[in-house]
Order: sequence, then C-alpha cells, then structure tokens
Amino acid sequence: MTQLRPELTEQHTVAEVPAPDPVDEDLHSVESELTAFLSARERDAATYGEEYTRLWQATGESSRGGKRLRPRLVLSAFHGLAGFGRGEVEDRTAAVQTALAFELLHSAFLLHDDVIDGDTVRRGRPNVAGEFSADALFRGAGGPRARLWGESAAILAGDLLLHAAAQRVARLRVGEATRSRLLDLIDRSVFVTAAGELADVGLATGMSASGLPDVLAMTAYKTAEYSVSGPLAAGALLAGADDEVVELLAGYGRLVGVAFQLGDDLLGVYGDETVTGKTVVGDLKQGKETTLIAFARGTAQWPDLEPLFGRDDLGPDATAELARGLERCGARVFAERLLADHVAAAVATLDTPLLPSALAATLTRVALGCVGRTA
Amino acid sequence: MTQLRPELTEQHTVAEVPAPDPVDEDLHSVESELTAFLSARERDAATYGEEYTRLWQATGESSRGGKRLRPRLVLSAFHGLAGFGRGEVEDRTAAVQTALAFELLHSAFLLHDDVIDGDTVRRGRPNVAGEFSADALFRGAGGPRARLWGESAAILAGDLLLHAAAQRVARLRVGEATRSRLLDLIDRSVFVTAAGELADVGLATGMSASGLPDVLAMTAYKTAEYSVSGPLAAGALLAGADDEVVELLAGYGRLVGVAFQLGDDLLGVYGDETVTGKTVVGDLKQGKETTLIAFARGTAQWPDLEPLFGRDDLGPDATAELARGLERCGARVFAERLLADHVAAAVATLDTPLLPSALAATLTRVALGCVGRTA
Repeated sequence: MTQLRPELTEQHTVAEVPAPDPVDEDLHSVESELTAFLSARERDAATYGEEYTRLWQATGESSRGGKRLRPRLVLSAFHGLAGFGRGEVEDRTAAVQTALAFELLHSAFLLHDDVIDGDTVRRGRPNVAGEFSADALFRGAGGPRARLWGESAAILAGDLLLHAAAQRVARLRVGEATRSRLLDLIDRSVFVTAAGELADVGLATGMSASGLPDVLAMTAYKTAEYSVSGPLAAGALLAGADDEVVELLAGYGRLVGVAFQLGDDLLGVYGDETVTGKTVVGDLKQGKETTLIAFARGTAQWPDLEPLFGRDDLGPDATAELARGLERCGARVFAERLLADHVAAAVATLDTPLLPSALAATLTRVALGCVGRTA
Repeated sequence: MTQLRPELTEQHTVAEVPAPDPVDEDLHSVESELTAFLSARERDAATYGEEYTRLWQATGESSRGGKRLRPRLVLSAFHGLAGFGRGEVEDRTAAVQTALAFELLHSAFLLHDDVIDGDTVRRGRPNVAGEFSADALFRGAGGPRARLWGESAAILAGDLLLHAAAQRVARLRVGEATRSRLLDLIDRSVFVTAAGELADVGLATGMSASGLPDVLAMTAYKTAEYSVSGPLAAGALLAGADDEVVELLAGYGRLVGVAFQLGDDLLGVYGDETVTGKTVVGDLKQGKETTLIAFARGTAQWPDLEPLFGRDDLGPDATAELARGLERCGARVFAERLLADHVAAAVATLDTPLLPSALAATLTRVALGCVGRTA
C-alpha cells in the first residue's frame, strides 16, 4: 500500500489529499454513458432477432479498451478553459456527451477502416468482422460466405455508431448557437476524415499520387482532424472560449495529430511487438504508404527495397532487412525529425497569453508524449 | 399542346386552373436543396484532392433519378394533416428538410446495400463502386485493387450521406420537443433498417433461419420502416398531428412497405425487363431469400427447384424454368395473395375519422398502387 500510493500515505495528510481531477471524473461519466447506451441498444435489438443482439454485443466489445484519447482532449479543453473566455460556459454534461460523440465517431471509423483494410483483429482481439466471420466458419459456412457475413456486420456496426455520434451532438442541451457550431465541427470531422481515408486507400491501391506531401496531407486529414483538432475545438466551444482560442487549438491539433501518426508509423516498423501489441510485419506487408516509404521512394536505395515492400509472404528476416534498409536510406531519421519538428511547432503555438498556463502545460505534455513513444 | 394538357386548355378557364399542389412544390424544393448540398460538398472537396471531388461527383450521380418516394410521403402526410391536429404546425421548410433527410438516408442505405451485395450497377448506371472500380481498371489496376477502390469509395460515400441525413434533422428550426421526436424517428429508422439488412445478409449466407415469418420480418425491418412508416410519421409530427394519428400512419406504413417489397420480389422474377429495367435473372442467381423462395422451400416441388436456385451460371432457360417452377408450386399465387392482403389491411387502417379524407384517399391510392405493378 505504502509503495503503491506513496503520495497519499506518506506525503499528505487527509486534508491535503488532492481534489479529484474533473477530467478524470468526467471520463468516468463518458464510460458509464457509453455502457448505458450499448446495454440499451443490446436490449432493444432482441426484438429484431438473435443476430442483431449479437451485432450489438460485438459492437460493444469493439468499443472497449481504447485509450479514450478523444474524450480526454474534449474534457481537457473544456475544463482548462471554462471561465477563461468571454462566452457562456455550457453545462459539464454537454462536455461529457460531446466527448462520447467523438469516441463513437472513432469506433465507427475504426470499424469501417478495418473493413477497407480487410483486418479482422483490433487491439489484440477479433473485431466485429473477425467475430462474425469466425462464427460463420464455425457454423460450417465457406470462406467467402463467412467473409461476407463478417464484413456486412462490420459495415452495419460502423453505420450505427456513426449515426449515434451525430445523435449525441444533435441532442445536446446547449444554446442554439453552440449546438450549431458543434454540429459544424463534427460535420467537418466526418468530411475531412472521409477525405483522408479515401486518400489512404488511393495510396494503397496506387490510385493517388504518393509523394511525401500527399502522404502528409492524408495523415492530417485521416487522423489529426477528428482525433485532436475536432475534440479540442469542441471542448473550447463548450467552455465559451473566444474564436481565436478555438482556432489556435485546432491548429495545434493538426500538428500534434500528424506527429502522433508519424509515431505510429515508426512503431509499425521499429516498435517492440511485446510492448505495442502490434506486429512489425503488418504495415510493410500491407504496403502501407507511410512517410517512411514516401521518403525512401525518393532515394537511390529504393530499387533494392521495393521488391520486398507490400509482399504478402513477407517473413521476419525480410521484414528486418526492409527495416534496416529504411534506416540506411535515411527514412527513419527523416520521419523522426519530421515528428520532432511537428511537436516543436505544436508546442510553440501554446506560447500565448490566450491560454491558461495549466492547459498550456497539459497540451505541452500531450505534444511531447509523441516523441520517442514505445507504445 | 391540346393533347398534352387537356385539363388546362379544354376544360378549365384561366380562373379555374388548379392551384399548384403544395406537395409537388415542396418536392421541387427538396430537389434544389439536394442539388445545392451536393454542389457545395463537391466544391469543398476540392481542397482535399481530385479523388475526393470525384467521390462527391459520383455520390451526386448516385442520388439522381430516384422516385423520391420517401420525400413524397413526408410531404403528403405534412400537407394532408397540417391544421388537422391539436399540436402546433411547424414551418413548411422543416418538412422539406425532413423529406430531404429521408432521401439522404435512402441513398446511404442503397450505397452500403450495394457494397454488401457486390452490386456495381444501380438504376441502369454504374453506382459509386462501379464507377470507381471501372476507373481503376481503366488506369491499369488489377481486379482486386479495382474492387477495393470501388468498395472503399462506396462505403465512404454511404457514411457521408448517412451523416448528412442526421445533420439535416439536427438542424431543423422547430421546437425542442418536435426536434427530439424527429431525432427519435430517424434513429429508429436507422436502427430497424440495420436490423433488416443484417437479417437479409443472414438469410443470403445461411446464417439466419429462412422460414416465411423470418423473411417477412426482414422485409418489414429492411424496407417498410425507413421507406414508409418513418416518413409518414415524420410528416405527421411536423403537422402537429396527435400521437394516435402518428401511430396509425406508422402502422399503415409497415403494411404498405411490406406490400411494396413483395411487389419488388414478384417483379424480380415475373417482371418485364424492358419495363422494370431490372433483369429477371438477378434475384434467382444471387439466391435472394424472398417470400417466393421461403414459400417454395416448404413445398414438395422444392427438391426439383433447389439445384437451380442461387447458381452463378443461371442462364435464361434455367431462369424461365425456375420461374415456372415457382408458379407451379404455388409460390407466385401465395406472394400475390399476401401482397393483396397487406394492401387490404393497410387500406382498412385508413377508414377512420382521425384522418382527413383527402389524405386517406391519397394513401389509399399509394396502397393500391402496390397491386399489379409493372415497374
């Protein structure tokens, strides 16, 4: 006990116990709201047959265990700014609902992204498609039928959560103007993310140009907007922050979002599988057009690397060779520097009297957390 | 001229020219709102690359040329009931926006339904998936890549329209209570339609029971709810109709929706291809579990028909043989009677002082229109 919570037992008297963090408190509320929503849906689904109940169960499973990055950002911006602007601060409940909306959006995007990538595993467990197709195989269906059953279930699950996200924002009990601006924000998140997803598939199928600027733009669209910019701007709006602040946070979010994705790309090749829970073969085998690859394509070493890239039968030795090749040609260092540059630029945006210093400190930590990630 | 519009030139003086039908007027508004929405999106998409602009163009194409059944029902209920209930009548603009929301929902469902069915043609033209995959093939991509590109585009297009439908309802300028009830309605439409779609795939893949009640329930969920019940109930709500009337129309809608689908199933086997624009091989080749098939499965003739059903190489002769077989075993007559029964039951629900007679007459025509359809 002493070792586990030294800050309580050794250094503080009871009177000094720190007040519970409102962000953490509200994250608990997000979690209970999500659970309540999924339970109600599972219950309602029973009227429409066993399979539909199973779809909602699997959808619920798929939304468990995430990092809740987006809700945390909504709530950090909300609590960090409430009372700091000139506008009216909306109810804390509205912030919780908005945080949940971004999490539902995230789950919906993951579901459809997995269908598009043909992935059946997410966070180390079968996803909705994986679970439904495995069940079909178990019940004697052939491969194509099982696959169709799995993909259909995942498409529908994504549709249901996408709609649920919009419903949350539509039902916010806030002023007309605030709701309208939040609807704009979530609309933009959906619009821009779809653009990024299309660009990503375009890169993977060779239908879009694959230069470095294209890959970076894709990253900003596909990840940064709905993961960082949108949530921060939403929290700021609900806190009654000035437009300048909302814009500032959205700009910070685009930089951090790209940095985060660059970190993911690096971990996808150089990460420790036992820590990330993600294989280092995946990205290279799937021929994912990351910044590493886009850089490597422009170097003299690419002709040696290309035959290995995107091979369905890529083994551990060839993977290691490809990873070393990407290091030799300078792609790894390039991606690491680009990541550091994005982080530095993001941190620089925070150096302004427009932000309360506690929020600036939190967001600086978030940005710096993108450097040297291990998971 | 005289022959084309005898009602104006021969029988009426100018003073007698009938006032323009408000439903038709508002349908024009729905059309211009849809066009304006799609143009704005296409314009905004340009920032995110050529492919995204093309996605919005193709999405726009895909939403052209429908019968606008759902908007018409919203508007018929709205205008038919406005001033007839005790509640407050909302603005006509709200009815137009709601009508558009149901049309957007319909386009979204068609897009995802086509992905699930692997269809690349809709209304005699390539759909979004068909257009994108054809372009990929043209640009030298192999079959699997072209297919992935097409399906991804269609999944994203469906997501975008599904979200757009929710946004329309969320932004209605109506009273808080009305908006909340309309959000409930569209939520129910999405929830029930997804259940029906899952059941449909379950039948097609052999993952769900395929008895007659299962097939009928699937039809009611997949089609009737969002196509008839939801739109009529929405129009009634906006017209300030009493709850009893809203419920009555939703009930009527479930019956007519099933009748309409039974008509589609019959046309899918016995229709005139030159009139329907739809091949009579499709349903039988795809192994679609319609009421015809569910009935036939329970007859002594099924063992003779089964080997032909769902065959990928089904030719015109075998199709004709299967169609005759379905007739001999009584499936055709059964489906026709069931359709007539649903129509009769729907018409019976209209025989009530709760409805203005003009609306009852319109809805009677709609119901009777499901019998003996040729297209």
